[in-house]
Amino acid sequence: MYVVKSFESMKIAQISPLCESVPPKAYGGTERVVSYLTEELVRQGHEVTLFASKDSQTKAQLVSTVEQSLRLKEGVLDTVAHHIVQMQEVIERMHEFDILHFHTDYIHFPVTSNTSIPHVTTLHGRLDIPDLQYIYNKFKNQPVISISDAQRKPLPHAEWAGTVYHGLPLNLYTKGDGDGDYVVFLGRISPEKAPDKAIEIAQRAGIPIKIAAKIDKADYEYYSQKIKPLFKLPHVEYLGEIGENEKEQLLQKAKALLFPINWPEPFGMVLAEAMACGTPTIAFPNGSVPELVEEGKTGLIVHDTASAASALKNIDALDRDLIRNTFEKRFSVQVMADNYLYIYDNIINKKGKSIELPVNGQLSIGAKRTIASEGYLHINGTRG
Amino acid sequence: MYVVKSFESMKIAQISPLCESVPPKAYGGTERVVSYLTEELVRQGHEVTLFASKDSQTKAQLVSTVEQSLRLKEGVLDTVAHHIVQMQEVIERMHEFDILHFHTDYIHFPVTSNTSIPHVTTLHGRLDIPDLQYIYNKFKNQPVISISDAQRKPLPHAEWAGTVYHGLPLNLYTKGDGDGDYVVFLGRISPEKAPDKAIEIAQRAGIPIKIAAKIDKADYEYYSQKIKPLFKLPHVEYLGEIGENEKEQLLQKAKALLFPINWPEPFGMVLAEAMACGTPTIAFPNGSVPELVEEGKTGLIVHDTASAASALKNIDALDRDLIRNTFEKRFSVQVMADNYLYIYDNIINKKGKSIELPVNGQLSIGAKRTIASEGYLHINGTRG
Repeated sequence: MYVVKSFESMKIAQISPLCESVPPKAYGGTERVVSYLTEELVRQGHEVTLFASKDSQTKAQLVSTVEQSLRLKEGVLDTVAHHIVQMQEVIERMHEFDILHFHTDYIHFPVTSNTSIPHVTTLHGRLDIPDLQYIYNKFKNQPVISISDAQRKPLPHAEWAGTVYHGLPLNLYTKGDGDGDYVVFLGRISPEKAPDKAIEIAQRAGIPIKIAAKIDKADYEYYSQKIKPLFKLPHVEYLGEIGENEKEQLLQKAKALLFPINWPEPFGMVLAEAMACGTPTIAFPNGSVPELVEEGKTGLIVHDTASAASALKNIDALDRDLIRNTFEKRFSVQVMADNYLYIYDNIINKKGKSIELPVNGQLSIGAKRTIASEGYLHINGTRG
Repeated sequence: MYVVKSFESMKIAQISPLCESVPPKAYGGTERVVSYLTEELVRQGHEVTLFASKDSQTKAQLVSTVEQSLRLKEGVLDTVAHHIVQMQEVIERMHEFDILHFHTDYIHFPVTSNTSIPHVTTLHGRLDIPDLQYIYNKFKNQPVISISDAQRKPLPHAEWAGTVYHGLPLNLYTKGDGDGDYVVFLGRISPEKAPDKAIEIAQRAGIPIKIAAKIDKADYEYYSQKIKPLFKLPHVEYLGEIGENEKEQLLQKAKALLFPINWPEPFGMVLAEAMACGTPTIAFPNGSVPELVEEGKTGLIVHDTASAASALKNIDALDRDLIRNTFEKRFSVQVMADNYLYIYDNIINKKGKSIELPVNGQLSIGAKRTIASEGYLHINGTRG
């Protein structure tokens, strides 16, 4: 494992979106990460309060302003209203906490920019939406955390406090042997995720492909026009949407995960999931991929389907034990929680000494610190 | 005309939604009212600052955080972001004003509920959305203004500061003679507005109907399945979407406006427009109708299409001069602006004396005052 700095117990508020419960009943990337982080912080002895819908499950203190997560609740027409109400609940209690950790985009900025309570926001989504430029031009001093360095690209002038990669519980998945003689595509059926490219790569390599993916309403036209016909190809097996157990087995036996991503993916949880199973990834170098996939170690990065098919021939050379070890070092909940604690500690102490932010306008707490000299992990330390 | 209390010059911020310019280029109910109010307040000598998109036209000081109204601006994916940015601009300048008048729903409540600057919000939309219950349970002390008493029904416990009906410039439309031998339907082609009922009423009465209405994308299926076939009936003429001049002529010559409204319409600007042209209305008693349409004076209120057809036979008995006069007394911009000034004055003075709100939790400023004793109009004085 690794050396961790131990922090004194902190009073931490985790503020989750309300679209899904924490953890989500089914899909829900952000709420899943909030859950992992919250439970790990509780396990480490911190006093954690989780602001989330009442159908959430947690060992933290749960504060709910709505009885059910919004996607499942009947008659919901205005989701913003519920997030505003939750924000007000946080404001009314904010003096109870050492740090407020928001996962709710920018909606709280008008309030947090006018308070001296230490706070930080993890940005879970894509940031290449032009409207966000207006937000980050207006709110220059709101500390935000990216989930990959690549995610920051459209907003270089935001007040970046660090990058913290998502982490998974160590025991969520175990290593498999990759002896299934197939490759796998996991995710949504959407143009950004490019399942058609994955099918093409498998075809070129002469390997069967198993596809486990949900089809959102928004993507149904794309699915029925572009992808459904491909599902009839003899080397393709479509499994629909699958559960956690099936996902583990699917990844454990796969020769490789295909990730021919076609947009600036801010993180890509499936990359960490594959690593947890010891499974290498063949990926296109968009978004977070060059940070998450280590070339020749945890996967191979390629630029087109032909190179991907060639790469598949060499994939067995990658060491599945090393891949699993890399997962444990870089993408465990413990690493994630420690990185967040490190940022909390820095923000609390900076605020304590002085409310002024650095002249350069970029907090980038800890970016210049090293693991060795401090005795604990750098923010996403394995890059250090 | 009527006696008006003259208020000392106030420094007023009008905060508009950003979806349309102020006034809107085409459709846009809220922004149109904000424009009428702003220009009238300027005319009366107040120092008005209008927060709105930069393509707005005003004699007030214009403060814009976005260069173009959002409906026309390319690449807009997140309209909430722009309203949050504008709110922050308001916050940064709020000490420049005697009163902040928001037209932006509830989005500013987390900030205004934590400030002592006098403020008030006009609610322009439907309030029967369940999510809003959570907002008004949480934010009990935010003074809000309804655009009809009926609009308040789903939210009886909100902090109602008064009802102010929308007003039109006196010279926008002039009285017509209603000699066109047709009835008219104006609005959107949607189930709530019930154009099918209007067509049925005209058919039963044996009178031609002219329909001027836009068709939103959201209503296209309803239009093509339910309404398009009716447009082929011999007594129906569909004019599409029309401009201000055409609208005036259409209303001036119409025997009556048909308003078989099928939802709790919070105001219904076309009711005031018809009155401005001296044209009576035959309406179903939903939403604001019983307040806006005075039975036997400015229109006839009926409960079904058969009664509506019968009512049409007696419609010529209504006095078009009296209808126009009633418009001038109740629905002019001057009346609207005076009512708002009265509320501003009360809020500013209450706040000045004490920040505490009444024990009952309902501000209802001025509701108990009378016109005669105060020498100026009651809130929507003609009801007094």
